[in-house]
Amino acid sequence: MSNMRSLNEECGVFGIAGAQDVAVSTYIGLFALQHRGQESCGIAVNDAGVISCRKGPGLLTDVFDEKSLQRLKGTSAIGHVRYGGDGDLNAENAQPVAISHMKGNLAIAYNGKLVNAGALREEIEMAGGVFHGTGHSEIIAYTMVRERIGSDSIEEAALKTMGRIKGAYSLLAMSPRKLIAARDPNGFRPLSIGMLDDAYVFASETCAIDAVGGVFLRDVEPGEMVVVEDGKLTSIDSGLPVNKSVCSFEYIYFARPDSIINGVGVDWSRREMGRALARENSGVSADIVVGVPDSGRSAARGYAEESGLPNTLGLVKNKYIGRTFIQPTQGRREHEVRLKLNPMSANVKGKRVILVDDSIVRGTTSARIVSALRDAGATEVHLMSSAPPFRHTCYFGTGIPGQDVLIAVNRTEEELARLVGADSLAFLSHEALSGILEEAGCPVCKACFTGDYPIELPAEPEKNIFQKPIRML
Amino acid sequence: MSNMRSLNEECGVFGIAGAQDVAVSTYIGLFALQHRGQESCGIAVNDAGVISCRKGPGLLTDVFDEKSLQRLKGTSAIGHVRYGGDGDLNAENAQPVAISHMKGNLAIAYNGKLVNAGALREEIEMAGGVFHGTGHSEIIAYTMVRERIGSDSIEEAALKTMGRIKGAYSLLAMSPRKLIAARDPNGFRPLSIGMLDDAYVFASETCAIDAVGGVFLRDVEPGEMVVVEDGKLTSIDSGLPVNKSVCSFEYIYFARPDSIINGVGVDWSRREMGRALARENSGVSADIVVGVPDSGRSAARGYAEESGLPNTLGLVKNKYIGRTFIQPTQGRREHEVRLKLNPMSANVKGKRVILVDDSIVRGTTSARIVSALRDAGATEVHLMSSAPPFRHTCYFGTGIPGQDVLIAVNRTEEELARLVGADSLAFLSHEALSGILEEAGCPVCKACFTGDYPIELPAEPEKNIFQKPIRML
Amino acid sequence: MSNMRSLNEECGVFGIAGAQDVAVSTYIGLFALQHRGQESCGIAVNDAGVISCRKGPGLLTDVFDEKSLQRLKGTSAIGHVRYGGDGDLNAENAQPVAISHMKGNLAIAYNGKLVNAGALREEIEMAGGVFHGTGHSEIIAYTMVRERIGSDSIEEAALKTMGRIKGAYSLLAMSPRKLIAARDPNGFRPLSIGMLDDAYVFASETCAIDAVGGVFLRDVEPGEMVVVEDGKLTSIDSGLPVNKSVCSFEYIYFARPDSIINGVGVDWSRREMGRALARENSGVSADIVVGVPDSGRSAARGYAEESGLPNTLGLVKNKYIGRTFIQPTQGRREHEVRLKLNPMSANVKGKRVILVDDSIVRGTTSARIVSALRDAGATEVHLMSSAPPFRHTCYFGTGIPGQDVLIAVNRTEEELARLVGADSLAFLSHEALSGILEEAGCPVCKACFTGDYPIELPAEPEKNIFQKPIRML
Amino acid sequence: MSNMRSLNEECGVFGIAGAQDVAVSTYIGLFALQHRGQESCGIAVNDAGVISCRKGPGLLTDVFDEKSLQRLKGTSAIGHVRYGGDGDLNAENAQPVAISHMKGNLAIAYNGKLVNAGALREEIEMAGGVFHGTGHSEIIAYTMVRERIGSDSIEEAALKTMGRIKGAYSLLAMSPRKLIAARDPNGFRPLSIGMLDDAYVFASETCAIDAVGGVFLRDVEPGEMVVVEDGKLTSIDSGLPVNKSVCSFEYIYFARPDSIINGVGVDWSRREMGRALARENSGVSADIVVGVPDSGRSAARGYAEESGLPNTLGLVKNKYIGRTFIQPTQGRREHEVRLKLNPMSANVKGKRVILVDDSIVRGTTSARIVSALRDAGATEVHLMSSAPPFRHTCYFGTGIPGQDVLIAVNRTEEELARLVGADSLAFLSHEALSGILEEAGCPVCKACFTGDYPIELPAEPEKNIFQKPIRML
Repeated sequence: MSNMRSLNEECGVFGIAGAQDVAVSTYIGLFALQHRGQESCGIAVNDAGVISCRKGPGLLTDVFDEKSLQRLKGTSAIGHVRYGGDGDLNAENAQPVAISHMKGNLAIAYNGKLVNAGALREEIEMAGGVFHGTGHSEIIAYTMVRERIGSDSIEEAALKTMGRIKGAYSLLAMSPRKLIAARDPNGFRPLSIGMLDDAYVFASETCAIDAVGGVFLRDVEPGEMVVVEDGKLTSIDSGLPVNKSVCSFEYIYFARPDSIINGVGVDWSRREMGRALARENSGVSADIVVGVPDSGRSAARGYAEESGLPNTLGLVKNKYIGRTFIQPTQGRREHEVRLKLNPMSANVKGKRVILVDDSIVRGTTSARIVSALRDAGATEVHLMSSAPPFRHTCYFGTGIPGQDVLIAVNRTEEELARLVGADSLAFLSHEALSGILEEAGCPVCKACFTGDYPIELPAEPEKNIFQKPIRML
Repeated sequence: MSNMRSLNEECGVFGIAGAQDVAVSTYIGLFALQHRGQESCGIAVNDAGVISCRKGPGLLTDVFDEKSLQRLKGTSAIGHVRYGGDGDLNAENAQPVAISHMKGNLAIAYNGKLVNAGALREEIEMAGGVFHGTGHSEIIAYTMVRERIGSDSIEEAALKTMGRIKGAYSLLAMSPRKLIAARDPNGFRPLSIGMLDDAYVFASETCAIDAVGGVFLRDVEPGEMVVVEDGKLTSIDSGLPVNKSVCSFEYIYFARPDSIINGVGVDWSRREMGRALARENSGVSADIVVGVPDSGRSAARGYAEESGLPNTLGLVKNKYIGRTFIQPTQGRREHEVRLKLNPMSANVKGKRVILVDDSIVRGTTSARIVSALRDAGATEVHLMSSAPPFRHTCYFGTGIPGQDVLIAVNRTEEELARLVGADSLAFLSHEALSGILEEAGCPVCKACFTGDYPIELPAEPEKNIFQKPIRML
Repeated sequence: MSNMRSLNEECGVFGIAGAQDVAVSTYIGLFALQHRGQESCGIAVNDAGVISCRKGPGLLTDVFDEKSLQRLKGTSAIGHVRYGGDGDLNAENAQPVAISHMKGNLAIAYNGKLVNAGALREEIEMAGGVFHGTGHSEIIAYTMVRERIGSDSIEEAALKTMGRIKGAYSLLAMSPRKLIAARDPNGFRPLSIGMLDDAYVFASETCAIDAVGGVFLRDVEPGEMVVVEDGKLTSIDSGLPVNKSVCSFEYIYFARPDSIINGVGVDWSRREMGRALARENSGVSADIVVGVPDSGRSAARGYAEESGLPNTLGLVKNKYIGRTFIQPTQGRREHEVRLKLNPMSANVKGKRVILVDDSIVRGTTSARIVSALRDAGATEVHLMSSAPPFRHTCYFGTGIPGQDVLIAVNRTEEELARLVGADSLAFLSHEALSGILEEAGCPVCKACFTGDYPIELPAEPEKNIFQKPIRML
Repeated sequence: MSNMRSLNEECGVFGIAGAQDVAVSTYIGLFALQHRGQESCGIAVNDAGVISCRKGPGLLTDVFDEKSLQRLKGTSAIGHVRYGGDGDLNAENAQPVAISHMKGNLAIAYNGKLVNAGALREEIEMAGGVFHGTGHSEIIAYTMVRERIGSDSIEEAALKTMGRIKGAYSLLAMSPRKLIAARDPNGFRPLSIGMLDDAYVFASETCAIDAVGGVFLRDVEPGEMVVVEDGKLTSIDSGLPVNKSVCSFEYIYFARPDSIINGVGVDWSRREMGRALARENSGVSADIVVGVPDSGRSAARGYAEESGLPNTLGLVKNKYIGRTFIQPTQGRREHEVRLKLNPMSANVKGKRVILVDDSIVRGTTSARIVSALRDAGATEVHLMSSAPPFRHTCYFGTGIPGQDVLIAVNRTEEELARLVGADSLAFLSHEALSGILEEAGCPVCKACFTGDYPIELPAEPEKNIFQKPIRML
């Protein structure tokens, strides 16, 4: 899937407790997580109980500069990068959410998606609660505040909140004296703990811990809550029944290859997926393996290693592309893929190509890449997806869209090959994918492949929030 | 008072119900109210129940352009321009506040200041309410939402809210189907009603109704609530005991001279203050009258007319000044007044000058103007303030500061003259001021002159809100 | 003429030699001259022979900030603010022009317009010269460089240049060791000399010398060149035949009222024009005098003084107007004048109004103001122009347009009154205008009134430059 | 060489003649060349003889948007992306240079560097020429204008100009009716011809022709000039003695891997360099090959193929890095490389690593990467440069700096290994490099390796231009 925008509800969080220059560290940590969200970003710092927050639309470099980081003084911080979801540019939804309540202040940043957001929101509204945005982070924050009233501490309120919110969440919360990290009992989304000198850091991916010069300690476990206060870290078991079912899409697409998630290296897992794909398609004869940059590269390497075919540079990506405004609406749709991904005629001409992509969602980009490779002289193109076919909606924050747009729904691989113009098309089997990750100690959620969801879903679709009755433009 | 920033808690509101192009009309209306607030601004529109809002720091021209106005589609709108108060640049405090709650959506914009904001906030927080900013508008909005739960309609909730909030407010509220305008029972701040074709418009000053090409109908009365629904306007008496005590500072300084507030023309009132000042100081011999631009000009004209002295252009204002970043910190403080207000040597040389300013708050700018006029050759400078001396804090939104910085506190006019370097100094008597406005049908609040507050103040200062525990940078 | 954009070829220059912080002083000086040009601006500084220059489109506050001023280090500087002329947004035409040539560097900034620009440009091009923009400043700079080759000094080259360029120019030139100021033999455009501590300053208007805290010394005389080197000022007579014929439009409209040009106070001259207008129209009966803000105010004061009628605030200007993007193209043309200039019904209702404007060029704005005053209740409106009627093109930089758009061409005052909807319309006679300025020692150019040009014009229109063969967008 | 900024005088050009929408095509073409220059960019279009130009500092997405491209109407265009050279941020040096002269207009964009720029400039200045910037493009333009006077056509003038300018240039010139492309007789810099429907396109690299959807025809030959007029292309032999000596650095570093330059595929040449490097270092035992992203990747692939070692992802690059402002001055220098290039512990731990970079210039980045790999657990690091050692200054536009900073000058490979902390260090031999390219039909310039320059250099260093007497800030 070379089109990053088709799956777009991911986010990244970073936190640090007990240090100086926390805003700069958080900026650097988020910078290493920028691939997880480019719509908006924000940092909240805690300076002896006063929480200052800056957030806005755009990349980190759009929202922050040296001056604004200097103004964000404090000894702990949390930060967030965010994808806006399908057309959701609601400015109020930028995180962290920073609020004040009866017993003090609170800032929240989270990655994931709740399945009972609508019910929670309705409950809060029925009690007179008011919402400024449409995001789930505000719902989590309000729930925590409501639980705080009858609780002795923010961690007690956070624990109760974990009992109330359902779905996927890797959450950071900052109160005047504490930094809390929590992960849902399925462990859908990653969350890691590291140390930077004497300070604890938390990050969606270990590459952010590396970026700040820290040392990775361990993951926050599914169902675990961790509290840092006065430089000491305490682990609290939420007591919620744990059913570890990690989102495989972190490995397939989202995470940076240098991150280690749940003890499994992302690059390693992708190479293994490529290897398995090669084994499953050993009958396909070809001359070269070409990976779709950037996310198909690791799997292509694995495919090449396993198959013995040369791993060839067949597509060159324009690394400035994220910034251009040239849109297909200008009647240049046919050339768009060339601006973005130029096929290397010199390397593919006269060759039978195994084209490895990380996944096939809508199939439109795949079709254009296949066509471009043929124009460049490839005699055969066999499209291989290192992800199994998506056939079911995801409710846990991957942004995998509804069944109506998923190309793999109700189609055979032969039909799909014809649709995208490939000589053949294959997906990795979900059994192979599960096998790789489970053997590595990481049981996965298979819902988007099988429709078998690891937690109970709400009976009806959650309309309320998606009405978006208020839009901040 | 030529330094506009020394009194800075004013705001302006504009609303329109039942029209097309409401965002453009609101932009134009606010543009005519820009003098009431330059820190931030915003517009919320209502499109068949969906409320869209855009707000941000800066002038209207900083926050809006043609594109953003086009995106704000709807058939009713409310807008706001805002002064940030003393250093309060909290981005979350920009108005309108747009929220969603159990029974729908709500957008609020208001001008004024509550005296029981702290108590209300505490009450809401104790019930689990959470605040994103530190402004009173959020408190009003939350109160209205809480009252909405037990009410049959938004106007019932608004009426109950009027019974709960104390202080100065001229308020616009927009629900999915209605636009509500309300004014506190003292009528501290202005609020006018006009018509633009078939639509009703509301504005802090009539000059905004003129700017959109509308026709002024009448003021919202103290203690009155007005509701527009389906193109019809209904007046509702809040039943609260009315004690009309209009803020005289609207006439002295805030309002545009072409506005008519509570039936009294602003320019007329200023000329009358100048005339009264001349009568009260008939013993002062001089050659010319010079008004401090811009706000001292009308009073200077009145003084000249009454005294028979020529009204002379003695100070020329640089009209681009609002935009410069050249600060006195660059060791050029002594020249600053010249960059801003250049004395006209040709007109003042060898002359005894009556210098008319609208008010004297801290006195520092006055001292520099007096000194500049002397440098330009004035032989005598008699400083006249068309406002009485400020000796007491204002709690109703003028931003008149604490007694510690008010130059008139515990000083005689002679002492003050010496302090600012003038040959003499006089304030208009507060009896004269009251007389002018009361005879015109507009009883005034005299609190800042006499310390006699027209409503009960809270026993203790309201600390809670001013702790600013959360800052949006 | 309330529409500032209809006459728009003016510029302002400022220079300083022999000081520290020259960029900040030049910024402040230009800030006081911002009314002379808002399209683009620039500052060039000289630091021991190295010339650094920054210029760009927009106001000073758009192009400069503290950082950019700090980078402009030097001991002398020249700066410029510029109107772009009719649609001329050619970015390359921003001044100063900074160039390097055989014998060193040179920066040029000038106010005025040459009448032999085309011939000079052609001559330079025939010798192999190349132009980057279409402005006359580049032509002057190139001419000076060409003269420099056969000259012993830059001042010799500058003198020879004065002999070659014809038309209106008030010119500042900065070489590695010298700052030169020169004024054409007619003295069309103003140029003043002041001192700021030990440094010499030059400015289009004395208000800029005031703004930096300097002391006005004298004007550069028509045909004079002044050189500052090593802190000493030398006057050099160009020897060109002097025919002092100052542009009266500086007094009528361009200059700030607090400036003193050629020994004549601008505000004084405007009041005198108003007085003369009153005398010439003593037969017109009216109740009040209303000046069109801002430039009609001084004349209105004079008219009121002479006629004995009250000078009334009848139109209130929105002081933020310069920044709005709301254009009449949005079908709101009829309300545009109200957004900009609101008639004060309270003051004009039932009154016969003398409406004093500084000039009437195209007449469209006048018509809208007259109509607005009638809507506000004025029973009669008599439009008075403190400038005589423009009937001839100006070639000397006022931007008075061609005869085809000048409303006064071939029309009687009665016809004009009907066109703009006024009860009567009168211009000041050009004899009266000349009389006022000549008695004050300032003989004027009457070309735009009489067609009698004080210097020889080129036989044919100068096409070459206006083809604009290169546009910088 | 992972630090792109250490070699930074490259540029890219793109041109199109005889089409519609030329600005959009040029934008897209330049977008594919953005890697060749990120300091400034510009596009000039020709609309029936009127040349419009827009240029400025920053990336294409900073300087252009849909609106500005729409305003650039024409039927031919040239464009440029530019590196600013060592600290040269002189705004006037942005290209294209658009000028008007006696016989019309001219726009110039070029890639390269002249060795007789100073002499030419002096000659032009002695003849009265004036310069606005310090770039060579202005010198070329002025030379062409001077030759134009005695020539019958622009192509005759361009031919004469080719006889006068010495050094490296791939040049596009646009006159009112023609588009000219010319390449120096050594062919130092690339320049290709393509077709887009009926229009001819020119580009520094073929990847730009691909990006606009065009078809590559052939290269402009060394010493060749090509003219497009009325849709027809004519080749003109300059008659200058051709000594083909192509810059090998295009293959080593500058060009995109998917470009084909002088008939040689860039990716192919890099893989061959890697293969040759492997053969030359067959004695080095290791476990894995790691390429430094992005430019060391192709050579690493070749090394792996030749050596039989696995090509492993050992360093992950943050693809947002180009935009951050976090500087090593913040005392985080040691972590900087991790923010940019994160070593993959999982892949390198316990491994002996062959680290392949494209080149080693100053050696500082290399040292940090070696150290990072050791921290990540590599037991040995053998640093291999696919370029030979730089020991001599380049005068032809690569930006290879002076001998004082070139780490390879006067040092053995052993000394260098110690300096960067590697277990061993090797450069590709320049004989191997030459062999690869010459066998492919592309004789190279070896000056930076051997000091043997293919053209005569000026006797003395060219001081004049580098004094930068004028700086545009």
